[in-house]
Formats: sequence, C-alpha cells, structure tokens
Amino acid sequence: MFDRQEFLKDLISPNNSKIVMLVMDGIGDIPNEDGLTPLQKANTPNLDALVKESDLGQTIPVLPGVTPGSGPGHLGIFGYDPIKYQIGRGILEALGIDVEVGEKDVVARGNFATIKGDIIVDRRAGRPSSEESAQIVSLLNDKIKQIEDVKITFYPGKEHRFVLKLTGDNLGDKLEDADPQKEGKPIKYTQALDESSEKTARIVNKLLDEIKNVLKDESKMNFALFRGFSKYPDIPNFENVFKLKAAAIAVYPMYRGLAKLVGMNVVKTGQTVEDEFKTLKEKWNDFDFFYVHVKKTDSYGEDGNFDNKVKVIEEVDKALPLLLELNPDVLIVTGDHSTPCLMKGHSFHPVPLMIKAKFTRKGLSKAYNEFECARGTLGTIYAIDVMPLALAYSGRLEKYGA
Amino acid sequence: MFDRQEFLKDLISPNNSKIVMLVMDGIGDIPNEDGLTPLQKANTPNLDALVKESDLGQTIPVLPGVTPGSGPGHLGIFGYDPIKYQIGRGILEALGIDVEVGEKDVVARGNFATIKGDIIVDRRAGRPSSEESAQIVSLLNDKIKQIEDVKITFYPGKEHRFVLKLTGDNLGDKLEDADPQKEGKPIKYTQALDESSEKTARIVNKLLDEIKNVLKDESKMNFALFRGFSKYPDIPNFENVFKLKAAAIAVYPMYRGLAKLVGMNVVKTGQTVEDEFKTLKEKWNDFDFFYVHVKKTDSYGEDGNFDNKVKVIEEVDKALPLLLELNPDVLIVTGDHSTPCLMKGHSFHPVPLMIKAKFTRKGLSKAYNEFECARGTLGTIYAIDVMPLALAYSGRLEKYGA
Repeated sequence: MFDRQEFLKDLISPNNSKIVMLVMDGIGDIPNEDGLTPLQKANTPNLDALVKESDLGQTIPVLPGVTPGSGPGHLGIFGYDPIKYQIGRGILEALGIDVEVGEKDVVARGNFATIKGDIIVDRRAGRPSSEESAQIVSLLNDKIKQIEDVKITFYPGKEHRFVLKLTGDNLGDKLEDADPQKEGKPIKYTQALDESSEKTARIVNKLLDEIKNVLKDESKMNFALFRGFSKYPDIPNFENVFKLKAAAIAVYPMYRGLAKLVGMNVVKTGQTVEDEFKTLKEKWNDFDFFYVHVKKTDSYGEDGNFDNKVKVIEEVDKALPLLLELNPDVLIVTGDHSTPCLMKGHSFHPVPLMIKAKFTRKGLSKAYNEFECARGTLGTIYAIDVMPLALAYSGRLEKYGA
Repeated sequence: MFDRQEFLKDLISPNNSKIVMLVMDGIGDIPNEDGLTPLQKANTPNLDALVKESDLGQTIPVLPGVTPGSGPGHLGIFGYDPIKYQIGRGILEALGIDVEVGEKDVVARGNFATIKGDIIVDRRAGRPSSEESAQIVSLLNDKIKQIEDVKITFYPGKEHRFVLKLTGDNLGDKLEDADPQKEGKPIKYTQALDESSEKTARIVNKLLDEIKNVLKDESKMNFALFRGFSKYPDIPNFENVFKLKAAAIAVYPMYRGLAKLVGMNVVKTGQTVEDEFKTLKEKWNDFDFFYVHVKKTDSYGEDGNFDNKVKVIEEVDKALPLLLELNPDVLIVTGDHSTPCLMKGHSFHPVPLMIKAKFTRKGLSKAYNEFECARGTLGTIYAIDVMPLALAYSGRLEKYGA
C-alpha cells in the first residue's frame, strides 16, 4: 500500500507558523424536509466571511460509500491511512471512558449478559442502568484481582457496558471474541488466533469461569461477554511524522484518547466551544498545531435533532472571533465524517472542508456548506490528504524533485 | 494492489432493497459545433426531474486519460478493478457473438486473410461480406473437426472476423498471436509463452497448416490470422462479492456476455429500451440488482451521429416512467465510458453519474449532463467506486471501525 507519510517525510521542513484544525464532528449532512442542511440553515456570518479568503473542497473519509466510525474518521484527518491503521474496539471503548492503556495491557469491551445454565438468554442483561452496572463492576474488582501473573481490572461504562483490562507480560491481542453474538447460544470461550495470544486466551477463559462463579446469585447481570481484545496500537508519532508540536483540545474522552494515541499533547479545557477557544489562546505559544474538536454537531446528528445541530454550528460561529484574533497561518474547518440528521447516524457522504491561509485561490463561494464545498477549488479528495495540505499551506512542504 | 472487494467483504450486510444500474453505453460526450453535448441537447423531462432528488458526480473508468474498451469499462462499473482483471480479446469476441465458452476452452479472434505463397498480402481478405465469410467458416467446420484430442470449432462473425474455439484438456492460453500484424510479412506461427500452453501452441500451428490446405483454392479468404488466445477468466462472482442477486438486461450479446462473466443472471428481453424496462418489471421480484444496458448511445457516438445519439437519450427518457413506477431504492444512471460524436470512438473523458436514493444530498443542479455532473456532490470518483456507493445508498454497508 502506498504510504503518504513515508513519501512526505523528506519534504517536510518545519517553520514557526501555526495551524488550527477545527473539527466539527459529523458536520456533513443532507437536506432536511425544508431542503436545507444544518450548515445552510445556520446563521454563520463569521464562517461566511472566512469563505471569501479560503479554499473549499470535500473529503472522502475512507473510500466512497464507506461510513467510518470515529476511529477511522479521525485517523484520516490526522493524516493516517485508516485502512492500514485499525484501532480495536476495546481500545476505543477504553479511550471513551478515560482508561489509561499501557504497553503491557490488553483491553476489551465487556457486556453484562444473562445466562440460564450455559445459555445466553440476554446479551445486554436487561439493559441495567449505569449505576446498577457500576455496582457489579465494583464487585468484580473486589473479587477478581489477578489470574496467574496477570492483573485484572474492570472499568464501568454506560448501561450494560464496561471495559476489561489485563495487565501482564506476553499478552497478545489476536483472539476471538468471547461472545456468541446471538442469544439462545451457549457461552463462548475465546481462542487464540496466534501463538503469542495463547496466554491471553487462557486467562480470559479462566476469567469467564470466575465471573460466572462470582455473579452466580445475580438475577440479570450473571455473566459477561467480551469483544474487541486489543493492545494499544503501534502508530507512528504525529509529532515525528509531521514535525509539528501538536495540542489536542477536546471535551470528550474518546477524542482526547484518539489524539493521544497518535501522539498529540492533550491539554485541559472546559465544556463549551468558547472554553475550547480560550484554551487555544492560552496554549497558543506552546504548539505549532492545534486539533480542536466540537462534539455536539455529531451528537445532535445522531439524535436526529436538526435544530440543535444548527444551534451548535451557530455557537461555533459566534465563538469564532476568539480563534480568529489569534490569526492562525492555516485554519482548517472540517469534520471527521457526516452525520445526517435524517439518518441519525454516521454516513458515507463526503465531508465539507475549508482551508483559510495566505495563498488560497479563494473561489466564487459565499458560504461554507456541503454544496459549495463540493464545487470548491480543492475538489473531492481523501481525508488523508488534509494533513499534507495543512503542511503545504503553512509553507512546510518543500518542492518535490528538481 | 489494494483490493476494494476484499476490504468491503466484511462490511456488506444484505437487505431487501432494489438497485437498478442503467448504463447508457458511451453516454459521455463533448460539445458539437453548436456548443452542446447530446445530453444537453436532448429533451429529457424525466431525467431532469430525477436530478433534483439525486446526487451527481462523474467517474473515471480506469485512470485519467485512459480510454477503456467495453470490457474494462464494464468491469469498472461492476465493481472490479479493470487493471487487475483483464478480459482477453478472444473472450470478448466470443461473448460478442454469443459463443458459449467453457472451462476447457481456449478461444481466439480470427481474421480471414489473403496470402501469396507464405506472404500475407491482405490482413482482411478484401473485406468479404459477413455472408461470404460465413460460408468459409462453414467449410472449415466441415473439414476440420479435431486435431489430436482437441475439438475445433469456428463461429462466423462480421465481415472478415470469426471466432475459433479449441476444446480439450491441458490447454493454456499464454501464447503469442498467430498474426504478423503487418502485410508483406510471412505467415507467423504461434509460440507458447509458458509450459502449460505448449499443447495449445502445437494445435494452433497444426491448425494453421490445415486451414491453408483446406482454403488453398480460395482466391481471397485463403488463410487465417489469430489473436487474443484466451480462456474464460477467473473472476470473483458478483453475487458472492456484493451479496446481491443480480440480473442483466441487455440487447447485445457482448454485454450479456460481460454480465454473465462476472456471474450475473442474463434474462431474455426485446429489442427496444421500452422492452428492456418491461423485462425489468417482469423480473422485479426475482433479483436485488438489475444491470440495464442501452447500446445505441455508443453506436451513434461511434458513427458520429449526434442527432441520433440525442434521439436515443430521448427514447430512454420517454420510457423512464416504466422504470420509475417500480420505485427502485437506488437508481444509478451512468455509462461505461464516453463516446464523443466528434471523435467517433470511445474516449477517456469522465462519465456522467447520477444516483437517486433516499439519503442523497440532492444539490443545486437541474439537468443531467457532463457539466452538472462534474460539479456534483459525489465529486470525481473512479468507476470502481460506483458499486460501493450503490451498496451504501441501499443501506447494505455497515460502519467501518468503531
């Protein structure tokens, strides 16, 4: 597979300019009943003014037609091939609840389940509340601390979900899910898929028996299923690859985790977009590159809440002067994927992209939305090409060839 | 080479929705003297109404600048990498005249030629009529039925062309053309390019001598040249790859053959576009995916007949309500390549693409033509990305990554 990072390596020449990548999660949409997308509907004087100084385009997160999860969506805009680098479900789940994952750890997503005898009768244990579920997690942490020389830790998640962490030597992560996927099937023990994961499989299978024993008197949460066993992935370090000292400003743990995973410095921030932009100002002198993540455009897309998605865009627009007064050399406004309100979920549609910098073509557009971006001067490109463009517009990419 | 089919495999989840891919062969064009393309000139109220509900884009059949034959043009829109999968000239010629090609067969394109002594003096034997040529084919079938244990069959084609089929065990297809390519050169015997094709080469060379002997008294068609020895290609089955039960509705044998070659079910139909749409209705409940092929847009492009190309587009538009009343979940309107009337042949220009489905962005366009498609919300993509988009718009592609 052609590796852009490998190709760019010798062309990158650091300088002192500042790049801001503002990611409105799930920003791309399709028109609602009234024929407008949230970006079209929102009143965004600041974004509109930016358009006149910017180049527009749209990105394909992975491949045309492919709907990315948050992992591949972010890897793409961070300049990593989302097909080459895959992030296990266990890792993502762990990042999402702020679990520290070290080099010797294997993590997995856990589900509490209900069994009768050895048959799974409810894969979600009747959807317990997060509080109920956390009590069982606490019980497991009390009763099961170690198997052989491997430390066992459970972390509470939402409802029936939790995270399992195994810490020890020689733990591979190539093993089958310990989950029959369907109800009415018997308990499924895991199996190693390579030699280096045999110890992990043995520990997990012993753990299943211990969990069954500890929870035998529970009426609903009397067993657990495990999926997505994964170690912390071995990904080239963003700062080394792009020669950029990078800060991540994000409210939600999963996005802080994704940024940390590629090697960005996660900085503390508040709860609102304005808080995030203030953090940007505070840290302005300490970094070259800033990833700023706005979550709620995606959340309201997932909820199908068009009006609130519009409001979040307007909130970003209103706070934008705080960012603009810093006068970044390159400002990228984009998303990691589309989350159309009508679809209530991530989608495969291309993602709007705007790049404000000194040497842009500008173009004929007067608004930042899906349609103007589709006709923009940057064309339709892959998300993985956004970072090279960020470097180029910031004057960091030298001429290739004589 | 990155294999999209391999990548998509785990993401495809079948459902009951219906996809129609309407292929107007060679639909893309360039403006004629009056400044309009056939798509712009044609009166197409039904296509124009569709545009408002659709996403537009344009496809690159193979690579920018590469003009595809019908084989690679179709492989691309069928979701096969046209560089990875190549269809021999012999196979395409055989498909074009409805020759059944089995696993043990090697086929080649034949040309009747005129020789004097052992020198080729006319590579097309004075361009005989198809009737004259068919008589010689019949004579050869009478006189040459078998060489060693290999069955020999000749099938008449257009003018000086015919198809040769060898049927037997251990027949490889890696051999040189038995054709010196230029007139004034001596007869060229073939040569095996690998060990497994040595038997085929020996048979073909004996056959050349037998043909020369049988036709020694003919004045013009007294010899034959053979090109493109090929076996039926080993191509992953469309229905397995995309998990779609697929029907092909096409008037011309080559396109039925191409569809059969990837594993579609070829259904019987009539001669007109209206007939094809009626067949679509008849078979509506039996399949998930329908490839509907309109040939004459290409034929008139090849003839340089602008007005008739316009008329075929209008014929399609007029018949379109028959298709639309079936209410397909996804309707794709595209071509396999461009055939500009001014060029009188296939070209490398991008191909208009329209996708009508539930979750489209729609966009700002009001007509289906080369220019609106170039500005469409799908952007400029490769033909091989059309099938993934068809799956995505039909709700058959699951999210990639967590």
